[in-house]
Amino acid sequence: MTNQAENKSLQKLANLQRQHKGLINLMPLQTGGMLTDAAKKALTEFGDGYSVCDFCEGILCNVTNPPIRDFVQELLPQFLGSEVATITHGAREAKFMVMHSLAEPGNSILVDGNRHYTTVVAAERAGLNIIEVPNSGHPEFRVDVNEYAQLIRKHTPKLILLTYPDGNYGNLPDAGKLGGIAQEYNIPYVINGAYAVGRMPISMEEIGADFIIGSGHKSMASAGPAGVLGMKRKWEETVLRKSGKYSKKEIELLGCTIRGVPLITLMASFPYVKERVKNWDEQVSKAQWFSAELEELGFKQLGEKPHRHDLLHFDAPVLYEISKRVRERGYFLYKELKERGIWGPQPGLAKSFKLSTFAADRQQLGFVIDSFKSILNKYS
Amino acid sequence: MTNQAENKSLQKLANLQRQHKGLINLMPLQTGGMLTDAAKKALTEFGDGYSVCDFCEGILCNVTNPPIRDFVQELLPQFLGSEVATITHGAREAKFMVMHSLAEPGNSILVDGNRHYTTVVAAERAGLNIIEVPNSGHPEFRVDVNEYAQLIRKHTPKLILLTYPDGNYGNLPDAGKLGGIAQEYNIPYVINGAYAVGRMPISMEEIGADFIIGSGHKSMASAGPAGVLGMKRKWEETVLRKSGKYSKKEIELLGCTIRGVPLITLMASFPYVKERVKNWDEQVSKAQWFSAELEELGFKQLGEKPHRHDLLHFDAPVLYEISKRVRERGYFLYKELKERGIWGPQPGLAKSFKLSTFAADRQQLGFVIDSFKSILNKYS
Repeated sequence: MTNQAENKSLQKLANLQRQHKGLINLMPLQTGGMLTDAAKKALTEFGDGYSVCDFCEGILCNVTNPPIRDFVQELLPQFLGSEVATITHGAREAKFMVMHSLAEPGNSILVDGNRHYTTVVAAERAGLNIIEVPNSGHPEFRVDVNEYAQLIRKHTPKLILLTYPDGNYGNLPDAGKLGGIAQEYNIPYVINGAYAVGRMPISMEEIGADFIIGSGHKSMASAGPAGVLGMKRKWEETVLRKSGKYSKKEIELLGCTIRGVPLITLMASFPYVKERVKNWDEQVSKAQWFSAELEELGFKQLGEKPHRHDLLHFDAPVLYEISKRVRERGYFLYKELKERGIWGPQPGLAKSFKLSTFAADRQQLGFVIDSFKSILNKYS
Repeated sequence: MTNQAENKSLQKLANLQRQHKGLINLMPLQTGGMLTDAAKKALTEFGDGYSVCDFCEGILCNVTNPPIRDFVQELLPQFLGSEVATITHGAREAKFMVMHSLAEPGNSILVDGNRHYTTVVAAERAGLNIIEVPNSGHPEFRVDVNEYAQLIRKHTPKLILLTYPDGNYGNLPDAGKLGGIAQEYNIPYVINGAYAVGRMPISMEEIGADFIIGSGHKSMASAGPAGVLGMKRKWEETVLRKSGKYSKKEIELLGCTIRGVPLITLMASFPYVKERVKNWDEQVSKAQWFSAELEELGFKQLGEKPHRHDLLHFDAPVLYEISKRVRERGYFLYKELKERGIWGPQPGLAKSFKLSTFAADRQQLGFVIDSFKSILNKYS
């Protein structure tokens, strides 16, 4: 790197600004992770490194000032419907922790065909074979949990995992029925609720799962990266096992995990998040209305219908046709929407696109629908 | 949890405030992690979950807006004296990544007796045996790197690790000499520089190490948790190996690590951090002067003398004697210092205490010395 290039790079770091500020946000990864005012305040209050650890006596989750202990040991298990809870760097790190604790290299695990890519990568990191329950394919991509039973008998996996909902189609498979199957075969059952916990009511106990995983930055109005992991008490000694040399320190957490700002925003937003899941019916109704309006424009909603989640995926052949003949290619949709104050579909994709209606109200979504109409008119 | 208890817990989350604001900060874990103004600004700019990922095309370290690619692929390797660099959740997570990639369960690794507890816990998580090169014991606790050679021959460890400096005494063993030993025996050599990288000049290449690890929240003016990992290019395929199913995704990073605010503060503070390491001589001189002044008061500095780092550890029998006869017991020192606007020694400890002079200037340290004098007078 030349001196000149270095200086240029350093200058860019002096004033980091986000381009997507103040836009109507429909980005599926982001709509559940927007900070509350309380979280924004906590962010600056505890910004300095290790400032959440002022009064640590050796265990992060036991710190009483700020009230981490209350949050992790009381509020979180109640919210998750779990007997025990802890905090993690994110959903993927929680999945790895559980896999690494319950299975040995060479073992198999059984997951749904709509699983997030990190489920596969976490299994690879733990040296595990992945068996997948296929989805039903285009256009609904449904996962039928009844298919787990046969594959459990065939492969005797060390655990089963269900993505609820998946991030691609926003499908909600029958998690409760899979709980019954897991109990029948006495096999540990992990719910990856990265897009459920903090958005919609969900209870590990009611589902009959052994583990429930949530994502702070995806669905709990938290800065990233942050995750939560709930479990039955019987797994505490396995997953939260202590070091042989340091009796306070949990091995899978390497002593402690989110020792900083992501934790404080997770905590500060929690009272709001706990309330907002009660509005889930309206969220679903809003998503269904929006989806119907976009289908009127010629887009085709993939995934379950009627849809029961704010994550929406549309096939959009008409946009693809436009992208083939315009200068901006696949970026034209991103550009057109951004000019109208809307941010959502990933830049560069136009054959199909994903949106989330979670953070926008009906008036904003009405404006989004009108914007799609005017974009289609402009290029038709 | 009763409704009343729950409401009380939720209320506590509504207004999270840090007690140790605006104090002279001597807390060893914190003095290198205080945010710059640029980092404070970036914190709110990129506070929302996943906002650093607006323009991600599949690899966090390739994102150009904000300029993560420049930072990780150009600036960071140059700063670390490494050929390749990446970002991690922290130093402990970097240690685990390297151990998990280079060694198999049942293998041994060789580390210094002053290693951080997380070195042990990371090894336990990876299923490794730990062999330790003992330190010289009280009062200097020195590690003689010559002792590695014999233990390498005896145990054929998969890697060796040196803590430089250690967090307990601030000792700086002869890292360069160990580089020669590592090369002689052709054994991968990891420098844990959690208290070096970002405080003092350090170069993996000059030391002759294979890996160098730093901590954002401990020493790089970053929010927590954040870490950096530099390595020789020959280790890239091992430690940063890609998923078999997702060719862009690094297995040990589970796809990506600090996807949020800790990364943005690490980047925003970097230009300042890069400059501040040039003032290291003054930092050392300040620490030596402060240490000599405290020894005048009857405290005994442990670790190397003359001391070459801002981390200081003092035996303080006189404080212990006081703590036995006052109402606050071991907390009296914390309370007395806090009343004077000083925060540093861990609450509850008085037999010995640790301080860091890194963040305070000479005038502030003069006030700290006077405060210790007046506390000793008060109770004598």
